[in-house]
Amino acid sequence: MRFLTAGESHGPCLVGIVEGFPGGVPIDVEGINSDLARRQQGYGRGGRMAIERDQVEILTGLVNGETIGSPITLRIVNRDYPNWAGKEHPPITLPRPGHGDFAGSVKYRLSDTRLVAERGSARDTAMRVAVGSLARQLLKGFGIESGVHVVKIGGAALEERAVPFALLAQAESSPVRCVDKKASQAMLEEIDKARADGDTLGGIFDVQVKGVPVGLGSHAHWDRRLDGKLAWALMSIPGIKGVEIGDGFACAGRRGSQVHDELFYEPGKGYYRTTNRAGGIEGGMSNGEILVVRAAMKPIPTLQKPLRTVDIRSHEPGLASVQRSDTCAVPAAAVVGEMAILTVIAQEFLAVFGGDSLKEIEERWHRFQ
Amino acid sequence: MRFLTAGESHGPCLVGIVEGFPGGVPIDVEGINSDLARRQQGYGRGGRMAIERDQVEILTGLVNGETIGSPITLRIVNRDYPNWAGKEHPPITLPRPGHGDFAGSVKYRLSDTRLVAERGSARDTAMRVAVGSLARQLLKGFGIESGVHVVKIGGAALEERAVPFALLAQAESSPVRCVDKKASQAMLEEIDKARADGDTLGGIFDVQVKGVPVGLGSHAHWDRRLDGKLAWALMSIPGIKGVEIGDGFACAGRRGSQVHDELFYEPGKGYYRTTNRAGGIEGGMSNGEILVVRAAMKPIPTLQKPLRTVDIRSHEPGLASVQRSDTCAVPAAAVVGEMAILTVIAQEFLAVFGGDSLKEIEERWHRFQ
Amino acid sequence: MRFLTAGESHGPCLVGIVEGFPGGVPIDVEGINSDLARRQQGYGRGGRMAIERDQVEILTGLVNGETIGSPITLRIVNRDYPNWAGKEHPPITLPRPGHGDFAGSVKYRLSDTRLVAERGSARDTAMRVAVGSLARQLLKGFGIESGVHVVKIGGAALEERAVPFALLAQAESSPVRCVDKKASQAMLEEIDKARADGDTLGGIFDVQVKGVPVGLGSHAHWDRRLDGKLAWALMSIPGIKGVEIGDGFACAGRRGSQVHDELFYEPGKGYYRTTNRAGGIEGGMSNGEILVVRAAMKPIPTLQKPLRTVDIRSHEPGLASVQRSDTCAVPAAAVVGEMAILTVIAQEFLAVFGGDSLKEIEERWHRFQ
Amino acid sequence: MRFLTAGESHGPCLVGIVEGFPGGVPIDVEGINSDLARRQQGYGRGGRMAIERDQVEILTGLVNGETIGSPITLRIVNRDYPNWAGKEHPPITLPRPGHGDFAGSVKYRLSDTRLVAERGSARDTAMRVAVGSLARQLLKGFGIESGVHVVKIGGAALEERAVPFALLAQAESSPVRCVDKKASQAMLEEIDKARADGDTLGGIFDVQVKGVPVGLGSHAHWDRRLDGKLAWALMSIPGIKGVEIGDGFACAGRRGSQVHDELFYEPGKGYYRTTNRAGGIEGGMSNGEILVVRAAMKPIPTLQKPLRTVDIRSHEPGLASVQRSDTCAVPAAAVVGEMAILTVIAQEFLAVFGGDSLKEIEERWHRFQ
Repeated sequence: MRFLTAGESHGPCLVGIVEGFPGGVPIDVEGINSDLARRQQGYGRGGRMAIERDQVEILTGLVNGETIGSPITLRIVNRDYPNWAGKEHPPITLPRPGHGDFAGSVKYRLSDTRLVAERGSARDTAMRVAVGSLARQLLKGFGIESGVHVVKIGGAALEERAVPFALLAQAESSPVRCVDKKASQAMLEEIDKARADGDTLGGIFDVQVKGVPVGLGSHAHWDRRLDGKLAWALMSIPGIKGVEIGDGFACAGRRGSQVHDELFYEPGKGYYRTTNRAGGIEGGMSNGEILVVRAAMKPIPTLQKPLRTVDIRSHEPGLASVQRSDTCAVPAAAVVGEMAILTVIAQEFLAVFGGDSLKEIEERWHRFQ
Repeated sequence: MRFLTAGESHGPCLVGIVEGFPGGVPIDVEGINSDLARRQQGYGRGGRMAIERDQVEILTGLVNGETIGSPITLRIVNRDYPNWAGKEHPPITLPRPGHGDFAGSVKYRLSDTRLVAERGSARDTAMRVAVGSLARQLLKGFGIESGVHVVKIGGAALEERAVPFALLAQAESSPVRCVDKKASQAMLEEIDKARADGDTLGGIFDVQVKGVPVGLGSHAHWDRRLDGKLAWALMSIPGIKGVEIGDGFACAGRRGSQVHDELFYEPGKGYYRTTNRAGGIEGGMSNGEILVVRAAMKPIPTLQKPLRTVDIRSHEPGLASVQRSDTCAVPAAAVVGEMAILTVIAQEFLAVFGGDSLKEIEERWHRFQ
Repeated sequence: MRFLTAGESHGPCLVGIVEGFPGGVPIDVEGINSDLARRQQGYGRGGRMAIERDQVEILTGLVNGETIGSPITLRIVNRDYPNWAGKEHPPITLPRPGHGDFAGSVKYRLSDTRLVAERGSARDTAMRVAVGSLARQLLKGFGIESGVHVVKIGGAALEERAVPFALLAQAESSPVRCVDKKASQAMLEEIDKARADGDTLGGIFDVQVKGVPVGLGSHAHWDRRLDGKLAWALMSIPGIKGVEIGDGFACAGRRGSQVHDELFYEPGKGYYRTTNRAGGIEGGMSNGEILVVRAAMKPIPTLQKPLRTVDIRSHEPGLASVQRSDTCAVPAAAVVGEMAILTVIAQEFLAVFGGDSLKEIEERWHRFQ
Repeated sequence: MRFLTAGESHGPCLVGIVEGFPGGVPIDVEGINSDLARRQQGYGRGGRMAIERDQVEILTGLVNGETIGSPITLRIVNRDYPNWAGKEHPPITLPRPGHGDFAGSVKYRLSDTRLVAERGSARDTAMRVAVGSLARQLLKGFGIESGVHVVKIGGAALEERAVPFALLAQAESSPVRCVDKKASQAMLEEIDKARADGDTLGGIFDVQVKGVPVGLGSHAHWDRRLDGKLAWALMSIPGIKGVEIGDGFACAGRRGSQVHDELFYEPGKGYYRTTNRAGGIEGGMSNGEILVVRAAMKPIPTLQKPLRTVDIRSHEPGLASVQRSDTCAVPAAAVVGEMAILTVIAQEFLAVFGGDSLKEIEERWHRFQ
């Protein structure tokens, strides 16, 4: 399963093609829309989220609601486009610190950073959500489920990180996607304060995936290791500056006897562990425990109280361009991260169980169980 | 530039083939050996490091010490091999918690975890160092240089993280690859204490790369972003559980105005910044600043005071197999991380500047400057 | 430059995403439509070609008619779709010999071969034409131009194969894309006779590409050889069963002294040859001569006088399903082949000259000249 | 399953790394040597074949003669190397027409064509044979077997092309790998005459693979079609200028009713055909019939009676460099072609049936049967 995404922030639409998805999988378009909506909710978003109400269309690859092994095309129309098209948009020559404006204009020899921002913005993450949501529908039938919650926004953090998988669903009803009411409240206040100051905030989220079978990824070659691929998927989300698997950086301060998860066995129950500091990955492979990954997002680089920068044409100092933007996008990024992780899991699942048809995969999976 | 590595921990040798390396590049084999030696030094290593003194041979791709555009084969003989070959090695059925032993034996249907450990051990990282050292020799001619230092081992940490690039060379004379004498001493003590307890330690290292031109990577598609590829390269090193770019997780607790690096310009000097919290990457592209990446390593999973586990044949409880091992391998992993990063930089550099011959790349690079 | 295509024969549209296309290239949508029209013309096509009049829309990647380095989405609406959608389409269980109906229904576990045919039909080649036409617009600025002509349809063949590049344009005014009037006439008659008999015809076409610089492809690794990639591109077009480079199979019957192209040099003129039996490729690399490739297409597998087959549900014998189809599609396939070749040439051109922006490529190319 | 090859013609050795080969497969090194010997035999070879007697060593990836899922390193020592190393080898500046000498020296900016020829020579095909022979050992257990025979050398050709699979073994005892005694004799005479004239010869060979299950490859995306990949594999063998699947070019002259293979069914026997003009591929997928592919090889470009060329340094006319070489290498190329095809089949087989361990593949394959 491979995919390409396309689309500019203010163009007519986002498009994605997913190739190698097995045949015979019923697709619930509303399920994808519901993940798209999860990405759009969240306290701290700016004006655009009120405009966009992302709906996916499936243009190819489905017959009577089922996949047939053909490439699947997903399209999300940009509802903002009609307000934008046909108007004059003067070039922007003051790159925003923290954004790809500067590097992109050098690389592509563009003297209008708008042409970088159109693709460099996080708008593309809506398509990554749609692709991941498709992956989720494949995985669901095999008992593989995920959840995500925000553990920190600016100075407000959840005290206890180790949240059981079953509680994650509660995060969905929090405006900041946090399982804890008190922490949610503190996060909301952080956002309000930052917004009042024309400033922005980042944060941290945790993704968990339950039901991942033993043996996804491989120790045999570095580029097939599951942890490496998960880190790639997360770190390539705009704004992400840090990734952890399991206890991550905390492992560096503890001794081996306090880090590694002992293995037990009970007839009927099979193998089990009483700890999961490895986050479900050992030796670059899934080990049967819940997958736990975490990512840190930097604050949004578009500030209402702009930072100092340089005009790329005149080389004169100036203030960064101010554009409609969010104060904090961590609750949205959490959904993007969750879907990026599910995409990788689906790819690795298909690599192990084959990929032509759902029936074939089911037979092999049942045998494996 | 692509490469494959091969080789078991106790087999005759490690092998790597690097394809797509440009022609006309003089290769200094001793330079590669010197990076291999850097990986082998370091306080806290076990008995094997006294045996191995890795030397690379270049079997293909060089004529009169220069590349000719052909694939380059690197081989490192395992000096330990003669002690190992021809002897009886009873199967190991007690997987070590924290290692790939368990997942690998399920995935590959092996009832001797030794067959997983042979490839899953960190021995393969010697070849990743050799490949990265080759990349380093290509990059050096374009002013791209790197350094690495250890900032934490167990409970002992460097207080001030932001070490200037010029100081990194000092880390090379520390037995724990730490630039600070006091912190070095504390790390040594941590290692001694852990070893005395039959336990192990992890830690954290920082890689910096200077001279990276603006525009490596791309914002145009998620899988071409430089940060994602760097995270992939680091997280796929055995034992790594966390990766940060620039200020990483710390960005999540600060406001945008305290995170993004303002841009300035001075005639003669060109564009510059006075901060580098982004670690040299914006929008998935290098921005001309020093590249700064950090990785956290978990403690080594092979403990002399073994953890509880389960026999994969009998399902009876037992203690993990005890093998000759290190107490702490962070100073070595730091070199592996540095070389993994240089490998990615070389790949992205060639993607931008072309790759057939050194002369051609030089012409294009000079024009770019 | 990579791309994915999607779309079913009777679905709403075909979609393609082209990723890695350089920025700053002005795109002429009408130029693409004109190549799409070339594919649709040609004597021997069935009823559908009267319905379809393919028009491409560019949904992403263009701003003010120029590329910006972002992925480009191409869409071609299926004009036949409204006639098809919403109607009942009973399953087809009688696979057509020569089509993927049988193998595809086994592979994807489908009991309606329509679900295979929807993607397996040659409809997808319209998107391959659109992608190749985009490639053509990039290459044109560097003096790289192509042409194609049909040299055989059924029993009617052009006597003299070696047609000069300059004459190829004449093929465009022939209803069978043949440069010779007499041969054209014979081909038309072949088609008429076959149609009258409810039968179908294949044929052979030649693609030529002028201006390809020396050194595309590489001898250094088998999968980078230009001839291999061209053969891959052509043989993957539905119906193609044979591919030749230069004199192809005829080389097998001649001696080396009659096959290899001697090399000459004249000041001002540079290197030149007086023969081009190699078809512009030596050692897996372009050698500066005109690229000449040829492909053989089998007759269309959908016959009006159907062949014997087996019902995949009942295993009873039957006659293959009869569907609206063409008698001969060689003039169309010739255009598909030409565009597939241009796509490969553009990819290899970008691999050598870089790919971020048109300006950068132009500078490098001028230096190379 | 992916692989890289390396090695120069007069360097110390050839090396290949095969990554993604399943675990638990017993490897018979002598079986690989026997395929290497098949490549070296054949009437018409020059002096080097008397020197080389290729033997493969497996440096990594095997434990007790079985694969363990790790990358497999193959090495073939060049026995000619000691005669070559340490001697002065003056640069060659007269590129041979038909060889990559000219294009390679331009591309890689080399002023000694020897540096191109070292890698561009067909010596690398020994490693492709070794890789394919490894693939053969995997496939054999699933009833997938292959054979190859030479059908034409220069003016001497086998009259009847359609040779039954069972007869192919007879080709192995012919000095020109031809199943027919009379045709063999005529080929030998062609070679003798060409050699006497200082000239060279090409020819044509047919590969057949029996037992390929239905559904390798896919119609769903052009680059997954089996025919395209087979053409890629064959056309990338040095000297190959034409490739056919099944009846290939002959299909272009016949009507559909004479080309497509009707489908029949009998209880107990299952689906079957009475013709196989498609060569076992329909819609880009294997259809269960014997796979039949054919390739045309041009005469060897190194002539003892050299062709005219130009000195790449002085631009003065001259005669191509004369090097020890063969008169005809078609019997050898036939083995290379066979092994290249088996490599593709193994890759596609693993894509369908999974790839972690032989046991797992066997279970899935038995279920499929």
